[in-house]
Amino acid sequence: MALKDVVSGTRNEAGIAAVLDILKQQLGDKLQTGQSFREQHAHTTTYLTTQLPDGVVFVETSDDVKTVVKACAQHKVPVIPFGVGSSLEGQVNAPSGGISVDFSRMNRIISVNAEDLDVTVEPGVTREQLNTYLRDTGLFFPIDPGANASIGGMASTRASGTNAVRYGTMKDNVLALTVVTANGEEIRTGRRARKSSAGYDLTRLYVGAEGTLGVITSVTLRLQGIPEKIAGGVCTFETIKEACDAVIMTVQMGIPVARIELLDEVQIRACNAYSGLSYEEKPTLFLEFHGTEETTVLQSQQFSEIVHECGGSEFRWTSDAQERAKLWKARHDAYWASKALAPHLDALSTDVCVPISRFAECVTQTQQDIIDNGMLAPIVGHAGDGNFHVLVLFDGKDTTSVASTEAFVARLNRRAIAMDGTCTGEHGIGQGKMSFLAEEVGNALDSMIAIKRSLDPDNIFNPGKLFRSDNA
Amino acid sequence: MALKDVVSGTRNEAGIAAVLDILKQQLGDKLQTGQSFREQHAHTTTYLTTQLPDGVVFVETSDDVKTVVKACAQHKVPVIPFGVGSSLEGQVNAPSGGISVDFSRMNRIISVNAEDLDVTVEPGVTREQLNTYLRDTGLFFPIDPGANASIGGMASTRASGTNAVRYGTMKDNVLALTVVTANGEEIRTGRRARKSSAGYDLTRLYVGAEGTLGVITSVTLRLQGIPEKIAGGVCTFETIKEACDAVIMTVQMGIPVARIELLDEVQIRACNAYSGLSYEEKPTLFLEFHGTEETTVLQSQQFSEIVHECGGSEFRWTSDAQERAKLWKARHDAYWASKALAPHLDALSTDVCVPISRFAECVTQTQQDIIDNGMLAPIVGHAGDGNFHVLVLFDGKDTTSVASTEAFVARLNRRAIAMDGTCTGEHGIGQGKMSFLAEEVGNALDSMIAIKRSLDPDNIFNPGKLFRSDNA
Repeated sequence: MALKDVVSGTRNEAGIAAVLDILKQQLGDKLQTGQSFREQHAHTTTYLTTQLPDGVVFVETSDDVKTVVKACAQHKVPVIPFGVGSSLEGQVNAPSGGISVDFSRMNRIISVNAEDLDVTVEPGVTREQLNTYLRDTGLFFPIDPGANASIGGMASTRASGTNAVRYGTMKDNVLALTVVTANGEEIRTGRRARKSSAGYDLTRLYVGAEGTLGVITSVTLRLQGIPEKIAGGVCTFETIKEACDAVIMTVQMGIPVARIELLDEVQIRACNAYSGLSYEEKPTLFLEFHGTEETTVLQSQQFSEIVHECGGSEFRWTSDAQERAKLWKARHDAYWASKALAPHLDALSTDVCVPISRFAECVTQTQQDIIDNGMLAPIVGHAGDGNFHVLVLFDGKDTTSVASTEAFVARLNRRAIAMDGTCTGEHGIGQGKMSFLAEEVGNALDSMIAIKRSLDPDNIFNPGKLFRSDNA
Repeated sequence: MALKDVVSGTRNEAGIAAVLDILKQQLGDKLQTGQSFREQHAHTTTYLTTQLPDGVVFVETSDDVKTVVKACAQHKVPVIPFGVGSSLEGQVNAPSGGISVDFSRMNRIISVNAEDLDVTVEPGVTREQLNTYLRDTGLFFPIDPGANASIGGMASTRASGTNAVRYGTMKDNVLALTVVTANGEEIRTGRRARKSSAGYDLTRLYVGAEGTLGVITSVTLRLQGIPEKIAGGVCTFETIKEACDAVIMTVQMGIPVARIELLDEVQIRACNAYSGLSYEEKPTLFLEFHGTEETTVLQSQQFSEIVHECGGSEFRWTSDAQERAKLWKARHDAYWASKALAPHLDALSTDVCVPISRFAECVTQTQQDIIDNGMLAPIVGHAGDGNFHVLVLFDGKDTTSVASTEAFVARLNRRAIAMDGTCTGEHGIGQGKMSFLAEEVGNALDSMIAIKRSLDPDNIFNPGKLFRSDNA
């Protein structure tokens, strides 16, 4: 399936050849140009055409990054940062060719400051690696986008996931970055102090910039204490509206829920089939509470009352770890269960986010749209944030199915934007949502492009993503 | 007292005259050019030389703001946004003259979305006005910088205050802004959705930009539910170190304390004298807990155990509102109590912020510095954030006292920066801390200047603040 948005840029052949020569000389076999390496690094999860870089550099230090950026800046050749390749909107594609900067060897934990609840890591560290490393400290890094993504990649797409309702997104959890800028220098965007009013918030500018403003070389993160107790539970509702009312009341009452996930009827059906479960095929909420024995019990009881008031089923919950894993099994397996609904089809994962007062309406309209168009597309939502995912199962070899999917995604994005929401809560823009970014931000796009040009005058950093900034 | 940093810029006399003519024609008596208006709007709290604007426009709508910006852009004349004038580092001064944009008439609450816990306001709304308005909704806006500042001003300086430890700073609580940019257009920087991965985080770029990138015309804020119960308390320690250890343990255990304030011995002495209290003149922590009856009791008990473990005095706490006000009286009166220590002297309020592991060390070294230099300077800290204020009492008519104060502030800022902290946690840079911003961010200043030039090519927005960007 080719998405209309994905255009190829102009290739600077002479520049690319010159850069490959320089990097071969300066970095030896850290540079790889074999077809298989290039293909791996243009991996675009799910649905976009792959566009291969011309070489992959396995950087080991900040100096390696500087070497790559300097050579690419000199010859105006694209630089595309690569974490683990789990981004969903073509962020690691190379529409004009260039150099993919692979961070898998820059995966050291640089320092843990337990008293300050912070850690500094290289960008290639994955979130699971980080949490394994931290286990003995009693601390953890909460952001969980599903995939075992790299911290650099998570920062670049402003990732979040299931427990953002409690712990925030990468925007809230990155204290500082080091970044190699277009002149090949490394800057530091912030300090380890928990707050600052000193100048522009460069940290928040680079978080979510998808590699278009510079290359991140380290990330300082806030950590949380591992909760003494975790309780989890599940309950069903007759309608999406009732489930969402329960979510709104929970948020309004300030119950510090750690996770509150919505699975729609189709998703539950998929989970039942995949995992041999027997949930009622109704809108279902999965909850998790973090705290002490006392506070998790208190929160679970408070939520039970809300469920009752909103007309939901009994809220089954437990603080026993094994029981909790059972209750949450359907949620954990949701992605694979959806895929298994139609193993022969392709899957497109897309996300939008709306104010929670509009969440029920947006999900319900989207379900109707799916039905009206005879599509198969389960919905999973981070309900506390008003963020949901649709996994569209479609036939990539059938042009009608592709066109219908594209049209559906366009309607979904516009529906969210019309509700004062956003075309992406956590996947980012990449190549896939460039036209929707433009629709969403309107004339603010000019400010974004002005910033891009000021920090990347030769358009070397991940060009062809977010927006066109090359005067083309 | 004149601070060395405060330099006058070049005045564009012809441009200023042209702009005053245009604005008189287009806005009538919304433009005021009388001396008293101009003096009021160059009010720089505490210690900087005033630098008057040439005219003050009392804007009533976004269109008025556009009119001002367009005229000023055409003639390259400075535009200086003005809230209530409570900023502390010369943010509202007009070193090159120009037009002060007064927002006191743009003080409408535009919309409250109770289900989404958000509100959109005009920039001139003050935080007290907002909370009075919200009272019946059961919601409140938590950020409390002390002064009854305007929301636009608070956004512009990335303000925070006593309860940032629980609710975050303006960075965390602004969902979206509208801003008039250099071409006189209004952009919107974000959506009401609680999170987004759509493009550059323009919201966070304008928050803390101190009016140097555009003029804010509305602010969408996150709100919180008014806590069912508030408990407050107080306890003393033998040393700053012990008090800070209690703070660190509290943060590490994840006790969601709403306020945790440190007053040093000198500050307590001032409070005793001012308010007729009889606190032991020792480092003292003031705490506040927000929650339900059950959770506030739980938190107070947990904190009591921590105090015991750290060698503090008994933790006296209450959830009775009147009793709590009594326990907190010293903290509430701290500023005026400090001033009263030496009513004939001038007062300079400065702030720094360090990682909390370095907080005790930074405060203790600063106390020693104060003693060594024979100064009078009480310290109040937002201890949970590692942020503290020093109120230096000095004689503005005595050049030795002024020089000694300046040297002290320089040492304080450098001490914080050396500890991986920041030269300002919440007051901002303005004119007063320009040299320390440069020291703190190093070569990242080039990125800030590049952004400034890209969004404000003619340097009309609050010039002479944060850094020099005029190639001078």
